[in-house]
Amino acid sequence: MFAVEVTDQIMIAHSFRGEVFGPAQQLHGATFVVQAAFLSERLDNSGIVVDIGRAHDVLKSVLAPLNFRNLDDLPQFKGTNTTTEFLTRFVFDQLAEAVRSNALGREGHELHTIRVTVSESPTARAWYEAALW
Amino acid sequence: MFAVEVTDQIMIAHSFRGEVFGPAQQLHGATFVVQAAFLSERLDNSGIVVDIGRAHDVLKSVLAPLNFRNLDDLPQFKGTNTTTEFLTRFVFDQLAEAVRSNALGREGHELHTIRVTVSESPTARAWYEAALW
Amino acid sequence: MFAVEVTDQIMIAHSFRGEVFGPAQQLHGATFVVQAAFLSERLDNSGIVVDIGRAHDVLKSVLAPLNFRNLDDLPQFKGTNTTTEFLTRFVFDQLAEAVRSNALGREGHELHTIRVTVSESPTARAWYEAALW
Amino acid sequence: MFAVEVTDQIMIAHSFRGEVFGPAQQLHGATFVVQAAFLSERLDNSGIVVDIGRAHDVLKSVLAPLNFRNLDDLPQFKGTNTTTEFLTRFVFDQLAEAVRSNALGREGHELHTIRVTVSESPTARAWYEAALW
Amino acid sequence: MFAVEVTDQIMIAHSFRGEVFGPAQQLHGATFVVQAAFLSERLDNSGIVVDIGRAHDVLKSVLAPLNFRNLDDLPQFKGTNTTTEFLTRFVFDQLAEAVRSNALGREGHELHTIRVTVSESPTARAWYEAALW
Amino acid sequence: MFAVEVTDQIMIAHSFRGEVFGPAQQLHGATFVVQAAFLSERLDNSGIVVDIGRAHDVLKSVLAPLNFRNLDDLPQFKGTNTTTEFLTRFVFDQLAEAVRSNALGREGHELHTIRVTVSESPTARAWYEAALW
Repeated sequence: MFAVEVTDQIMIAHSFRGEVFGPAQQLHGATFVVQAAFLSERLDNSGIVVDIGRAHDVLKSVLAPLNFRNLDDLPQFKGTNTTTEFLTRFVFDQLAEAVRSNALGREGHELHTIRVTVSESPTARAWYEAALW
Repeated sequence: MFAVEVTDQIMIAHSFRGEVFGPAQQLHGATFVVQAAFLSERLDNSGIVVDIGRAHDVLKSVLAPLNFRNLDDLPQFKGTNTTTEFLTRFVFDQLAEAVRSNALGREGHELHTIRVTVSESPTARAWYEAALW
Repeated sequence: MFAVEVTDQIMIAHSFRGEVFGPAQQLHGATFVVQAAFLSERLDNSGIVVDIGRAHDVLKSVLAPLNFRNLDDLPQFKGTNTTTEFLTRFVFDQLAEAVRSNALGREGHELHTIRVTVSESPTARAWYEAALW
Repeated sequence: MFAVEVTDQIMIAHSFRGEVFGPAQQLHGATFVVQAAFLSERLDNSGIVVDIGRAHDVLKSVLAPLNFRNLDDLPQFKGTNTTTEFLTRFVFDQLAEAVRSNALGREGHELHTIRVTVSESPTARAWYEAALW
Repeated sequence: MFAVEVTDQIMIAHSFRGEVFGPAQQLHGATFVVQAAFLSERLDNSGIVVDIGRAHDVLKSVLAPLNFRNLDDLPQFKGTNTTTEFLTRFVFDQLAEAVRSNALGREGHELHTIRVTVSESPTARAWYEAALW
Repeated sequence: MFAVEVTDQIMIAHSFRGEVFGPAQQLHGATFVVQAAFLSERLDNSGIVVDIGRAHDVLKSVLAPLNFRNLDDLPQFKGTNTTTEFLTRFVFDQLAEAVRSNALGREGHELHTIRVTVSESPTARAWYEAALW
């Protein structure tokens, strides 16, 4: 299996509900470094999984509505704890939709799996990986 | 599959037996950067795999008896080459036990897999990954 | 000149006033990785600048009141843009006070300079460096 | 499953054919950081997957013919886009051959899988992973 | 002294003349990670050295003519070894000009020093630092 | 001022004497990542500070007698706490001698300053910087 992975980042505020979160129940924030990996069994005729430039653009467009925002204020996250884990899945779902609509410049069904990794600090990160079909 | 991974480090001395190790047969040491990843099919009601703070605490308590020690002197490693690979499995086994006793704040059977990565330098690392059940 | 540098991190929310900040005028946040370096002309009799463990503790105690907080709400930052640059100086001032009261386990006047580096993302950071006396 | 991974790097020039590559159709270059991971179900009697020193040597010998070269000039890459993805597979194939001829100091069939990761910059990388048998 | 530093990268080909360069006399290439630091005695009224977004833009515009190019072909580098050291100074000179023409959104004379760091690999980098006035 | 910096690493065991060291009084160890920077006012005719390959070789030869050793056993460190700070100075002195004997391929007096940085973990490092003449 081949993979190509691109990286971007966002700076957001949020808070969590639930005693398990301790001080993170308070309004705080994070720089999230987000890696999006696209996996495929085969390279295309140009010798790539997907165009890296296009992958960067798609990832950036998925992250744009979140960047420099308080996630607690965004309607799409109403009543949700926007944990690092939750965000890996949120980004995955958006990227999967982009793949299915061929926005990555390759017929979607030629891509097999997406893995999204979100690092919240040098010592903690989360990822979500799933097949697309 | 979701994953959460936390990172800690230890500074240890040890030596290896076997010609394959060359100069590493001599007493030397390492800073081991240890990453522990917990994988689960589903997030809990709070939107997490496991509490990151608790994961940090459990990892630290597993590493504490090794930190600032000569591993050659520890009874639990008697007659063993404490290679980077060996330590990935040693930490895995301790973390698996913690998961099974629900020490991570989530019913153990909701966690699926653990992966432990140990980096011995910027150019060499090892990992061990296995399902828990 | 010798230096010892320790690293810690905080996760905060804040917003900025001023058109120059563009979207960062909105409430957002950051993971700040903070490095504190202590410089000295001479090592002490133990062969150190300052005890690394103690340096970690002092840095952590300086950062604790900021961690998991919205800096806009803290009285000590009232009417201030808590930019990355501002925070380098804020941490410097607190560490300088700790040095002057010998909280680092070495007579303060034996330390010459402090440099505080704050990284807000993999692609942007700030630092403040000044002599202590 | 256990894994051991070693890292090396090369500095190369190349160009790509195909409009998808945009400015990368021009002759340009890259520092490729190459990670080679060897996976095995079991450690050997010494407690290792493969000797890390030997793994470094084999990886270096695979990369040597590419280092400080214009890949467009190398006969083995005639008519090929030497993309980051392509190179992950090229290195994989050479390492797989080394494993099969026991060049890593362990009977090849005891190794299960190889994963080769090639990072072209801090924000883009590719990998190829496949079973050996 | 305060500093703000931003980071970008380019992928280039080049070759060197002179026996000292050994195999690097051949056409090869590099991913250069470029850090530009702007130093100032004082923050402005907004609490910044320079706007980080604007610093990113200026650095990107300085690097754009080099990115995805063979530096041997560029007229501005005719007869020059475009070593990592040389490039630190080349970028410095361009940034200094930008500062002097107030392109960074702050009166140039309020900035004191620029430092440009260029990393060619995880194990080698160069920098150039000089006062502006 | 120009600088070129190269990086290498060693894996050692050692122990410290003095209550300030707490658990580090026990025999333990470290992976030390060592960066050696050579500073000069001017580039030579080839456009370099020193040849990076040669700088790597000199650094490696300075570190070789320490690598894979228990520093407590080495006669040159008898009665010395081989702290991270101490080692920055030890490496500095050896590199300064190499520079003075022109072992770096440039007349020693054209080099101005050396800075040696030793990282003991992702969260702690030390450096020593001094002029050569």
